[in-house]
Amino acid sequence: MSIKYENLDTLKAFKELRAVETSVDLKEELTRERILRYSAPAGGGLTYNYAAKAVNDEIVGILQKLSDEQQLVAKYKEVLNGEFINTGENRKVLHHLTRGQLGSDVTFEDKNLRDFYVEQQNRIREFSSKVHKGEIKGSTGKQLDTVVQIGIGGSDLGPRAMYLALENIYDVEMEGHFISNVDPDDANAVLGRLNFETTLFVLVSKSGTTQETLANRNFVLEKTRQAHIHGFNPSKHMVAVTSETSPLAGSDEYLDSFYMDDFIGGRYSSTSAVGGVVLSLAFGSEVFDQFLAGANDADRAALELDLRKNAALMDAMIGVYERNILGYGQTAVLPYSQALSRFPAHLQQMDMESNGKSVNRRGEPLNYQTGPVIFGEPGTNGQHSFYQLLHQGTDIVPLQFIGFKDSQIPFDLDYEGSTSQQKLKANLVAQIVAFAKGKEDKNSNKNFAGQRPSSLIYGLQLTARSLGALLAHFENKVLFQGFVWNVNSFDQEGVQLGKVLAKQVLAGGDAMDEALKAFSDLLEI
Amino acid sequence: MSIKYENLDTLKAFKELRAVETSVDLKEELTRERILRYSAPAGGGLTYNYAAKAVNDEIVGILQKLSDEQQLVAKYKEVLNGEFINTGENRKVLHHLTRGQLGSDVTFEDKNLRDFYVEQQNRIREFSSKVHKGEIKGSTGKQLDTVVQIGIGGSDLGPRAMYLALENIYDVEMEGHFISNVDPDDANAVLGRLNFETTLFVLVSKSGTTQETLANRNFVLEKTRQAHIHGFNPSKHMVAVTSETSPLAGSDEYLDSFYMDDFIGGRYSSTSAVGGVVLSLAFGSEVFDQFLAGANDADRAALELDLRKNAALMDAMIGVYERNILGYGQTAVLPYSQALSRFPAHLQQMDMESNGKSVNRRGEPLNYQTGPVIFGEPGTNGQHSFYQLLHQGTDIVPLQFIGFKDSQIPFDLDYEGSTSQQKLKANLVAQIVAFAKGKEDKNSNKNFAGQRPSSLIYGLQLTARSLGALLAHFENKVLFQGFVWNVNSFDQEGVQLGKVLAKQVLAGGDAMDEALKAFSDLLEI
Repeated sequence: MSIKYENLDTLKAFKELRAVETSVDLKEELTRERILRYSAPAGGGLTYNYAAKAVNDEIVGILQKLSDEQQLVAKYKEVLNGEFINTGENRKVLHHLTRGQLGSDVTFEDKNLRDFYVEQQNRIREFSSKVHKGEIKGSTGKQLDTVVQIGIGGSDLGPRAMYLALENIYDVEMEGHFISNVDPDDANAVLGRLNFETTLFVLVSKSGTTQETLANRNFVLEKTRQAHIHGFNPSKHMVAVTSETSPLAGSDEYLDSFYMDDFIGGRYSSTSAVGGVVLSLAFGSEVFDQFLAGANDADRAALELDLRKNAALMDAMIGVYERNILGYGQTAVLPYSQALSRFPAHLQQMDMESNGKSVNRRGEPLNYQTGPVIFGEPGTNGQHSFYQLLHQGTDIVPLQFIGFKDSQIPFDLDYEGSTSQQKLKANLVAQIVAFAKGKEDKNSNKNFAGQRPSSLIYGLQLTARSLGALLAHFENKVLFQGFVWNVNSFDQEGVQLGKVLAKQVLAGGDAMDEALKAFSDLLEI
Repeated sequence: MSIKYENLDTLKAFKELRAVETSVDLKEELTRERILRYSAPAGGGLTYNYAAKAVNDEIVGILQKLSDEQQLVAKYKEVLNGEFINTGENRKVLHHLTRGQLGSDVTFEDKNLRDFYVEQQNRIREFSSKVHKGEIKGSTGKQLDTVVQIGIGGSDLGPRAMYLALENIYDVEMEGHFISNVDPDDANAVLGRLNFETTLFVLVSKSGTTQETLANRNFVLEKTRQAHIHGFNPSKHMVAVTSETSPLAGSDEYLDSFYMDDFIGGRYSSTSAVGGVVLSLAFGSEVFDQFLAGANDADRAALELDLRKNAALMDAMIGVYERNILGYGQTAVLPYSQALSRFPAHLQQMDMESNGKSVNRRGEPLNYQTGPVIFGEPGTNGQHSFYQLLHQGTDIVPLQFIGFKDSQIPFDLDYEGSTSQQKLKANLVAQIVAFAKGKEDKNSNKNFAGQRPSSLIYGLQLTARSLGALLAHFENKVLFQGFVWNVNSFDQEGVQLGKVLAKQVLAGGDAMDEALKAFSDLLEI
């Protein structure tokens, strides 16, 4: 099959979708039969339920045609097989390969890249095991019990969200911390809490030139120096995660270096060494292996052509329907699990940085909307916060609920006839139904219009495996949507201009743009 | 002057605003002169700059007419003077009174409410001082060094955001933690880190009936019981913050009780006892006093009729212009200060719960958009995340930047010719200009359209005083916008239906709605 990259609005199925006249009345149609039927496996033990989305069999049928016509699964296979999908930067897109071989062998410059990723995993496994066993100790002879990731963007958000998601269900071998912002208050605050003698820093920058990260490395080195610890050698307390060609690679300044490459985008790097080092050190490499296995399982589930059996594809296509037909501009991600407190922030990057684009893969301007704004907070907290607007505001915001049957920590208590976990789940279910069905009230201030669509991803428990699947589900959803919109989901040219201008400000001088200079004066830079 | 509550679309000035044909080309017009002139004092040492907003003198002039016609400052004075502004619930709105007397005396049932709030502040001052001095100790005789707030929504988001904003600039008398979610993993995780003998819990619920909060209290009591600490008495380790009529008030189960009343909305309660107890215990009451003074200063600044001299009013009116004329559906809040990491989450509640309404104060449906979606993360982190969409996505998202000249912690380092704080500020300035002016590039993938509006609130340093002013600025902005849209910003009927349905799920039985039952079965409730 030859692969064609076409704009959404040129597709026959999209015209058909635009012409659909039926609509779904969730008040009437949200039956048990529908709830059982509108369900797709997401891999890793997760299930995606879309019964409370405003789609029906007719719409789903056309979404299937659209998926087929836009060759979404075939394009996904191109990714898996190592095609240069990231056209702007002429790069392969290989985060799937970090967690398993699903397509043909991928080689680059005579190197089998699956072997390369596995080699790094093995090196991480061995390294973290030595640290845990005390075979590698701090420079003053103490057991290393704390790991601090220094990185920003994809080197921070994903690994941090994953760490928080797992810290309460597994034995913590090493307590994790994160330094990301160039704001000196960030590094100062974290460093103030550490015992340097027992701390291992993980410096993460693919290029080895990320300004914020290098400034924070500098901070760490100076702070450890100023601590005047007898016999302390900072090079024995820092490892680098970078590309093999970066200035950080293999430097004597680091205890060791672990590698990813240009084919792993920052926002897709949690399953590479970027997530692997910190998570293996924190929880042990067995936990990280389960995380990879879960992601791989979801990647496999995304190969299915029938979107009724492919959760990521269905999620993607319903999102396109909501964005381009119903005109909704944002999506709220609402995990009913406190452990997922930073998962929405990670998805915010993954989705918005991937598909927040206005030109297609050939650089031509698009005539339709692409990626939505993503935001979210854990339930039940969000219920006491922004749900008011979601229920009764003037805009409809599509919702993605996430829930689990069991809590991570087994201890629970009955209070007024139910446990906390039961209350948590009851609230989740109640919200889905409240948003969908609403409630009429003669007092219009107490009236709920309903018809506010939501989906639910659920599983037995949030473990490393289901977390991996959850992550990969959203990665693949975003990938499919990028192909539907015909954008390059894997570059981020939009971040460049700010970097260039910030350098101009720091360089100073008369050549600076008038507005830059005037604002710089206000802030006394 | 008689006060009239009219819908926005009935106002003469709004029709005039709709008819405006000029637009602002930020590429051309963002001059030094404009940057210096488009500036308004926000109180507490803060300044609001709107030079990079897409308004000009003509539009600002009409916004002034709109403000006057809708009697915004007069309505604000009604709030200050204790009118029953929250009509749906027949309540006064008195969070301003917790930080100073700006209007006439406010009495209710023969009680002067300013005296009441001051009395609570004095009681908190005395109590926290005794705890700090060791005059009040834990039940086993140990100094209390940790404070844990148990609350949700407004009893959590605001106080938590304020705690994080201040913990690195002041001496921490007691380390703060927060338990909010009914998810048992939340309470378990926090409680697992505590030494109960040195911990004081602050139970916060205005009604005394918040289900999540009472379930978490139960958790705390059982966990402390199971710890089998000899001589431990939980009633000596918990205080209540509640209304005087609540079941928690004055109970023997608590060491002490501090009070707010029905006239303090949860999302506006950080300056009441809800924020006062935990922040005074954490940092000392002098710090909390400065926080109140800053808020009061911003409240005072918001009394100015001329919106060019009233930052909250200008911010509100530009927001209305962006929402109802330009059609933007969301606002991103971008603090260039890691200490404000949870401030956007607090604003998300404050704004979306206040103005996410579809009916006016009389309960009549509205024909125009009201409150936008609010989201945000600290810069520079956000730059490496969702800024891609903000720069090059298909939707325009108005931006609110926040920045400070100095960091909170004085230690900083030069790296490659600039300190971290300089880099932070340079990035902030660069982003404002990049969003406004864009950059043309023949490669359309590297092209920045610009014309993306932002404002900047800035001050010398994030302290208790400037934080109070920042908080009050946004509270007053939201209040003004609520009056423009003619909604009741102080109720939250949209949260009720979910509560009712959750109770039905927990009660179980055959009477349950079919959809509730089917989803409950999926999650095995």
